[in-house]
Amino acid sequence: KIDGDRLWDSLMEMAKIGPGVAGGNNRQTLTDEDAEGRALFRKWCEEAGLTMGVDEMGNMFMRREGTDPDALPVYVGSHLDTQPTGGKYDGVLGVLGGLEVIRTLNDLDIRTKHPIVVTNWTNEEGTRFAPAMLASGVFAGKHGLDWAYDRVDAKGKRFGDELERIGWKGEEKVGARDMHAFFELHIEQGPILEAEGKEIGVVTHGQGLRWIECTVTGKESHTGSTPMHMRKNAGRGLALVTELVHEIAMKNQPNAVGAIGHIDVYPNSRNIIPGKVVFTVDMRTHLLDKLNGMVAEFMERAPALCEEIGVEFACEIVGQFDPPAFDEGCVAAVRNAAERLGYSHMDIVSGAGHDACWINDVAPTAMVMCPCVDGLSHNEAEEISKEWAAAGADVLFHAVVETAEI
Amino acid sequence: KIDGDRLWDSLMEMAKIGPGVAGGNNRQTLTDEDAEGRALFRKWCEEAGLTMGVDEMGNMFMRREGTDPDALPVYVGSHLDTQPTGGKYDGVLGVLGGLEVIRTLNDLDIRTKHPIVVTNWTNEEGTRFAPAMLASGVFAGKHGLDWAYDRVDAKGKRFGDELERIGWKGEEKVGARDMHAFFELHIEQGPILEAEGKEIGVVTHGQGLRWIECTVTGKESHTGSTPMHMRKNAGRGLALVTELVHEIAMKNQPNAVGAIGHIDVYPNSRNIIPGKVVFTVDMRTHLLDKLNGMVAEFMERAPALCEEIGVEFACEIVGQFDPPAFDEGCVAAVRNAAERLGYSHMDIVSGAGHDACWINDVAPTAMVMCPCVDGLSHNEAEEISKEWAAAGADVLFHAVVETAEI
Ligand SMILES: NC(=O)NCCC(=O)O
Ligand SMILES: NC(=O)NCCC(=O)O
Repeated sequence: KIDGDRLWDSLMEMAKIGPGVAGGNNRQTLTDEDAEGRALFRKWCEEAGLTMGVDEMGNMFMRREGTDPDALPVYVGSHLDTQPTGGKYDGVLGVLGGLEVIRTLNDLDIRTKHPIVVTNWTNEEGTRFAPAMLASGVFAGKHGLDWAYDRVDAKGKRFGDELERIGWKGEEKVGARDMHAFFELHIEQGPILEAEGKEIGVVTHGQGLRWIECTVTGKESHTGSTPMHMRKNAGRGLALVTELVHEIAMKNQPNAVGAIGHIDVYPNSRNIIPGKVVFTVDMRTHLLDKLNGMVAEFMERAPALCEEIGVEFACEIVGQFDPPAFDEGCVAAVRNAAERLGYSHMDIVSGAGHDACWINDVAPTAMVMCPCVDGLSHNEAEEISKEWAAAGADVLFHAVVETAEI
Repeated sequence: KIDGDRLWDSLMEMAKIGPGVAGGNNRQTLTDEDAEGRALFRKWCEEAGLTMGVDEMGNMFMRREGTDPDALPVYVGSHLDTQPTGGKYDGVLGVLGGLEVIRTLNDLDIRTKHPIVVTNWTNEEGTRFAPAMLASGVFAGKHGLDWAYDRVDAKGKRFGDELERIGWKGEEKVGARDMHAFFELHIEQGPILEAEGKEIGVVTHGQGLRWIECTVTGKESHTGSTPMHMRKNAGRGLALVTELVHEIAMKNQPNAVGAIGHIDVYPNSRNIIPGKVVFTVDMRTHLLDKLNGMVAEFMERAPALCEEIGVEFACEIVGQFDPPAFDEGCVAAVRNAAERLGYSHMDIVSGAGHDACWINDVAPTAMVMCPCVDGLSHNEAEEISKEWAAAGADVLFHAVVETAEI
């Protein structure tokens, strides 16, 4: 059994870096706070005897040697970056859970045949630089390195420049590692496990995702002196498209979602009719055909809706992944571990995207989930119990050790 | 006749301060650019022999003495501040038109019985600090001085602090001036004069306005893993209210308008369902009963619409004025001047709010309007012709001189 108190203490210690305004965290990727979080994680890893590798995307690989020099490592980890108003566990639990696996092996003086590598993937959240899971995506060959470097944040700063600025641009080629397997522990970020009273979610699939960045163009003009019939109000385009996204998600129930989280209005003045609105639609479901159907319906109807009110609609896909099905062997390792340890568990589909969804394409992969209170995440009030965290890390430990072989 | 070339040159000279990104201006109130614009105007006024007064709101009063020491001054002017993506004429034409009146009197060596004072009213636009026409509103006794000082911009900066920072906080008590009359020349900012082929609008009335700042509160949560039925999407509240505002304006046609120009989404992340949206509704018409009816309908239906989708609605009026009817004598002076000079003209209602709308409550007031291309304003592409500007300033000159008596 892992040490639940030690894991919890580390979670609380990490949460001190980049505190939010309401009890959570704001430790967005490639900020000074991100650098501070990385340094603390590195220190803990070195104290646990691990050696560090860093690749050109800033992905961190903290390695414990195995007994067989020819055996590929088992990887375990998640991400340390957070949303601007994020929680203390989203991502962090998976990284520090991986560290707890190592610490427990050290305590028990166990050496595994396969090396074990704890990872921190850069920019999982995708808030500052779209898309999400950017660095694991480059690792899995989904994006080119230069394309990733050229992503810009809302202030026009480049990903590549910011990575260099915080001092975490490594030399190792991205993706130049073969993995025996990859395991990621993560909070569910949804309400199902808690509602079903289960301690462990055995993740068999994930939802696919499309991020569609839309631009509605009208004409800036005076809110007082422009007659109604002469207006081209881009804000009305946003309104109609917001409801369209909702309607499409609702008619694809169950197991489909859609919303707009990010909206920028130009010029955003009380007495100017919006001339332009830029926003990102997020649509997901775990069924690929359904996902493609939802996007196709959106692409057909959104421009027509906007045309009817005299504004122009344009869009571009800025993030996408198809629904992943995780490796049966790794999934079984997770399920067996939960069973053996006597934790209540169920198979589950991940609602959110995770680094594991990309790594699944290049290595046998599985995920362990633990509940979170009210299914709340991407909110500073995100909460889990110490017991849930410990159960998740326990299952992770047993799945990893079984796969890494003693 | 005034000197149209000189007026135009001054307009172009002023437009160099705080250039926009698309040919217009960004010279928002109490910025460094505002200070620079004020300094240039002051220099021109002093060259024309005027003496300066500045009140505690930063309103500028540039005075030319009259022949009768007991006669109250005739005031003439508008504002030099612009929208963030504003035009070169909105406000500026009225201030520099006032200066052109003085320069022409100097050229002709005419002395009037009443002194003439050219004004630049602080923060007419209301973009950086709501409400619009803030300083003329304090002058007219509509707002308290301390209340005005406490207005904050989007970055949390106080109006009073910023006024002091740019060095334009005067000592004179606000409103401590009696006026014989006030005249304001302004571009129409709407399409009517151009469509009717008239060079001059004789402004008889203005629209009343209500700015309603609304806050829709939902619950921040993950766009991927939060099931549709558990969402409280504040963005949908914005969508429904956007269409409600449009519907109310449309059903009050003709002569009513409504839109939302300013929207802030929290936390504004692609994969977070908006937990809060703050936005300002702008509703106007020149009929007071209709205006009150529109607002009452909005206040009744907006909370109900939001409640239906599980989000909360709250609102507060942050700007308001009732439809003004301008002084018959001053209006006649404008109409007579246009007639005498042979300019085509028509009576018109002002679609926008103006400093004249407030001053009208404390002094006999009227406005002169000139057309603008396509009725476009609050847009960097705002345009007028040199001839339109000259005609407007000509009418202003004759109305002012008639009222100030030779
Ligand atoms: N786990 C998580 O919140 N990842 C961010 C990518 C997504 O939006 O699903
Ligand atoms: N003239 C003008 O645009 N004034 C700003 C106040 C308003 O929104 O009407």
